[in-house]
Amino acid sequence: MSELLGVAVLGAGHMGTDHIRRIDQVVSGARVAAVADPDTGRAKDAVAGIDGASVHTEVPAALDAPGVQAVLIASPGPAHEEALLAAFERGLPVLCEKPLVPESAGALRVVEAEARLGRRLAQVGFMRRYDAEYQRLKSLLDGGRLGRPLMLHCTHRNVSSPPGFTSAMLVNSSVSHEIDAARWLLGQELTAVTVLRPRPSSNAPESLLDPQFVVFETADGALVDVEVFVNCGFGYQVRCEAVCESGSARIGDEHAMVVTTAGGANEEVAQDYLVRFADAYDREVQAWVDATRAGRVTGPSVWDGYAASAVAEAGVRALENGGRVTVELAPRPDLYA
Amino acid sequence: MSELLGVAVLGAGHMGTDHIRRIDQVVSGARVAAVADPDTGRAKDAVAGIDGASVHTEVPAALDAPGVQAVLIASPGPAHEEALLAAFERGLPVLCEKPLVPESAGALRVVEAEARLGRRLAQVGFMRRYDAEYQRLKSLLDGGRLGRPLMLHCTHRNVSSPPGFTSAMLVNSSVSHEIDAARWLLGQELTAVTVLRPRPSSNAPESLLDPQFVVFETADGALVDVEVFVNCGFGYQVRCEAVCESGSARIGDEHAMVVTTAGGANEEVAQDYLVRFADAYDREVQAWVDATRAGRVTGPSVWDGYAASAVAEAGVRALENGGRVTVELAPRPDLYA
Amino acid sequence: MSELLGVAVLGAGHMGTDHIRRIDQVVSGARVAAVADPDTGRAKDAVAGIDGASVHTEVPAALDAPGVQAVLIASPGPAHEEALLAAFERGLPVLCEKPLVPESAGALRVVEAEARLGRRLAQVGFMRRYDAEYQRLKSLLDGGRLGRPLMLHCTHRNVSSPPGFTSAMLVNSSVSHEIDAARWLLGQELTAVTVLRPRPSSNAPESLLDPQFVVFETADGALVDVEVFVNCGFGYQVRCEAVCESGSARIGDEHAMVVTTAGGANEEVAQDYLVRFADAYDREVQAWVDATRAGRVTGPSVWDGYAASAVAEAGVRALENGGRVTVELAPRPDLYA
Amino acid sequence: MSELLGVAVLGAGHMGTDHIRRIDQVVSGARVAAVADPDTGRAKDAVAGIDGASVHTEVPAALDAPGVQAVLIASPGPAHEEALLAAFERGLPVLCEKPLVPESAGALRVVEAEARLGRRLAQVGFMRRYDAEYQRLKSLLDGGRLGRPLMLHCTHRNVSSPPGFTSAMLVNSSVSHEIDAARWLLGQELTAVTVLRPRPSSNAPESLLDPQFVVFETADGALVDVEVFVNCGFGYQVRCEAVCESGSARIGDEHAMVVTTAGGANEEVAQDYLVRFADAYDREVQAWVDATRAGRVTGPSVWDGYAASAVAEAGVRALENGGRVTVELAPRPDLYA
Repeated sequence: MSELLGVAVLGAGHMGTDHIRRIDQVVSGARVAAVADPDTGRAKDAVAGIDGASVHTEVPAALDAPGVQAVLIASPGPAHEEALLAAFERGLPVLCEKPLVPESAGALRVVEAEARLGRRLAQVGFMRRYDAEYQRLKSLLDGGRLGRPLMLHCTHRNVSSPPGFTSAMLVNSSVSHEIDAARWLLGQELTAVTVLRPRPSSNAPESLLDPQFVVFETADGALVDVEVFVNCGFGYQVRCEAVCESGSARIGDEHAMVVTTAGGANEEVAQDYLVRFADAYDREVQAWVDATRAGRVTGPSVWDGYAASAVAEAGVRALENGGRVTVELAPRPDLYA
Repeated sequence: MSELLGVAVLGAGHMGTDHIRRIDQVVSGARVAAVADPDTGRAKDAVAGIDGASVHTEVPAALDAPGVQAVLIASPGPAHEEALLAAFERGLPVLCEKPLVPESAGALRVVEAEARLGRRLAQVGFMRRYDAEYQRLKSLLDGGRLGRPLMLHCTHRNVSSPPGFTSAMLVNSSVSHEIDAARWLLGQELTAVTVLRPRPSSNAPESLLDPQFVVFETADGALVDVEVFVNCGFGYQVRCEAVCESGSARIGDEHAMVVTTAGGANEEVAQDYLVRFADAYDREVQAWVDATRAGRVTGPSVWDGYAASAVAEAGVRALENGGRVTVELAPRPDLYA
Repeated sequence: MSELLGVAVLGAGHMGTDHIRRIDQVVSGARVAAVADPDTGRAKDAVAGIDGASVHTEVPAALDAPGVQAVLIASPGPAHEEALLAAFERGLPVLCEKPLVPESAGALRVVEAEARLGRRLAQVGFMRRYDAEYQRLKSLLDGGRLGRPLMLHCTHRNVSSPPGFTSAMLVNSSVSHEIDAARWLLGQELTAVTVLRPRPSSNAPESLLDPQFVVFETADGALVDVEVFVNCGFGYQVRCEAVCESGSARIGDEHAMVVTTAGGANEEVAQDYLVRFADAYDREVQAWVDATRAGRVTGPSVWDGYAASAVAEAGVRALENGGRVTVELAPRPDLYA
Repeated sequence: MSELLGVAVLGAGHMGTDHIRRIDQVVSGARVAAVADPDTGRAKDAVAGIDGASVHTEVPAALDAPGVQAVLIASPGPAHEEALLAAFERGLPVLCEKPLVPESAGALRVVEAEARLGRRLAQVGFMRRYDAEYQRLKSLLDGGRLGRPLMLHCTHRNVSSPPGFTSAMLVNSSVSHEIDAARWLLGQELTAVTVLRPRPSSNAPESLLDPQFVVFETADGALVDVEVFVNCGFGYQVRCEAVCESGSARIGDEHAMVVTTAGGANEEVAQDYLVRFADAYDREVQAWVDATRAGRVTGPSVWDGYAASAVAEAGVRALENGGRVTVELAPRPDLYA
């Protein structure tokens, strides 16, 4: 196929701008056909130099613009539900950045809407599934050589948290990546969650509970523990060790280049998720474009987005109340069987 | 000083025999003066070829044998209390293998007995404090460069458990090493414990809850988590990562030799604690001999032994009952301030 | 720009087919406009399912086909000179797989032809310059933090050599990558070469001198040593350590995932250069497409291709004659200053 | 055996003092019986607090002192020959620090003297044979799993060279360790040597050729290359990679503790050979004491010491003259078959 897929990008902030660049310059087979953002100036800036990309302030206008064949949602989370439903109405394939919808109730409405359509239209932006190391780990676990997984030990560290980051966001924004990765790697739902709270780092903003140590239980009796520490000071570090009946496997250590100087033997630590997962984002969007052009929908489903929201909500309750909180999920529609 | 320290070794089993060899052949400044074991045959075998080592079935006879100036207790745990008190009566310095005394009530009686003496006579055999990697980590944490420790992530894996190993022993025998190491590294008491139980590995003996995931809280609000997995199948693996306010530090990965063959790049994993901690045992006994000859008592105290027992008992209750169990310690005598 | 760059791919063998897939499916902004291969069947197979790609047996016909705006040469080395000159005649930008031209005399004719044009049209396919690890190393060396480079220690290993691989090809095919990488990393010409020949591995085909140990000297007095071993049996392994006045830096160890089983702690070794350098090939072609669409020529020049040929020829003489052979280069045209 | 081996230590400089401490405090089964040093003051300081150690200015007096049963030679190299011959006359077992004798002619006289005795009395202090990593590598190579060794790639780096260190000493002092290690690991003699000289580091003292790159050939056609760089600035780093027909093995990377801070993930590099090889020295002397008390002589022989001297001399000629120099060895006496 030589015609390029026309994509409407909703949201021209940090993430939206990065996706616009990706579609224009990196990914094969797609072009930016329209952009929507309430701030017209930043929408215009984001598509400067791109031929044929129209600029809009309202989502419906962007979806209805000439040449639009698919939608990439990169607007703030609260705007996702309305955008997804609008895309569904028009039968447009969607790649929706995480979270699918911030509240699990809204996420469930999206699940139900897509289930009513009777076919998948949306993919959720859990990009770790497209990271080469995660894919190797998934492949190893699925191959069965290590036997049944018993535990996942996860680390999720950021240099520092952005202004306004709350204790709950450690769970429902940061850890949501581990929630999806664990569900995907293990192929099972998370059923309960406990949040342990060490005394906060003095480098964290006042009143922010950072770090936290979150422990999930799975339907099959495995444990998933996550150290989340968003003011660790030194870098963006995402690691995962799977402990199985016949061995363990670990990803995420730094190793690309070892520099030895008077300070010792040193390996650089990535400072940013856009650096660490740059290739994963590229592969994610390429895979979405390829599938869409072939008339298929693959990747993480809205059910995955809903489940992540529901687990994250249970996690926030566990953080606030102490103790163990069970996760309640709605029945899974056949579409996502 | 050129006279050798005469040591009575109590117990001629696996550990006792290893210590007899160590005193005879490895350590400078000491000799085996007496051995006691109910099984005379194995006591005789253990000192074959060693001049001047007398053999006994009873502990008091060994302690009173000619040339005995110090005692190394390597008998089974239930015999420790009586042996310690007998050594105290005679004013003999002691190196007592862990556990100090299996029940914390008995350990407390030893604490009280030594406190009544008004001076330290006993050192407890927590040999990790003498491991080069642990010592580097301790030195790094004490130096303050990384700031206050917030979490310790620990791994303790064995190839397979010996016959008769119970679910409680994962906590009070295996994890007791992490209990002491955490108290020592952090310089504070452990105040509460929770034991999480994933579905057991199918490679574990029936009814053994293996692995377990144990989470301790400390007086200063730090968390210590321990994966203990005594039928992991592949080796003896002890790791520790300290997460601090300004950085993290990790010890225990395999690295001595990388062999690359058609199977990939491979590093050997130690199969046994006597291999992994061989140097630590040597340093521990050498340090004890040196201090004893100099008239001093250093190293882990009976208070450390008592505290480890008390925390382990709380851990076993947490394992059996579920939920979080607080640790109750007796007041700390001034001798151990 | 939204119009796609029309590329004529010359050669539909292993490498050509891979580049056709890359242009069609991976790279942004280009399309396959024509393919030339003496074997029409395999040319047709290579473009099956690609709209608008014409198939040719002769190079000129492919270059003159409708929509062709640039040329990617992936035919066997002996066909390169003629193809390059044909592209130059038509003013078409070229990406030419290595070697530029197998004999340095022919490579020099290409240099002279482009110099006569007075502007660069061709880029040579030394893809290591696009590998993330090599780029980090280059950036570190250029930054000057480690001081002047004194030595490069390089390793180049393949699982096994293809049929017909000769002792000379270890130098002029395999090591040619290190020749270019060293020139690029150090920013200076290689001036002499010595080839040391250990007794061959019994796993190498009879009469193949494998491994070899090649030592280059540079204009600035640095040394570059290369272990080339094309029947190492275990994998494709490319490593480079730069030893500088104030430190060293090493790339190329395996580290993506550590799997610990009863065999030890294991890291997978890539089996193939298309796996190890997959991302580098993608970035290389993307960079070429981007530059070409912007009317620029970047990347390794035909001078780089010529210099690599001349050094490789000296290396083959050193292999055959023993001893040290100096490298003679023609004067460098101003175009490549 | 409970009587301690009485050792005369010749030389009370840096190395001698360290060995006196080792015999007194670390090693089991030995004691310092006498010390000889022309500087009486420093000899007295070295044995302060050690009972029963007599102090001498002359070697014969020390060897004849009461209680002396064995000799450890740690005096400067030029004094070794006379001391060795004096020990041989008295039938005293010897541990002689490297070099056995600086000139190979003198080393050969020692070989001939011991051969006339008809039994081994001396062990040479090549302590790398007692390093745990080297022993693992030796064991792996001897086991045959990797097939025949084809190449050894060695690195030998020091922070900075002591005053008076000459270009020749890089070969005959620093690289002499690799000479012995290569002979021992490969079980064959080195037959030729070439020394390549990159432009010196600007951090090296003026006129010192540092680094050097030394290439040895072995009797079986293997290659051994050594980067020796004694003003590398960052640490003491000794590495060795054995490349064999069916795989490779590497020792010597830093790995004991990984510290991650804002500067990246860091591993400490040892600054000194007494730190890096502390355990090897301990094991070496313990092994010598054990063998001596058992009436045996093991470890590197005077033949090994002679061969190392002869290879080092050829290396110095290669450094001075350029080109390849063959190594000439005297016939090997049956005693060392």
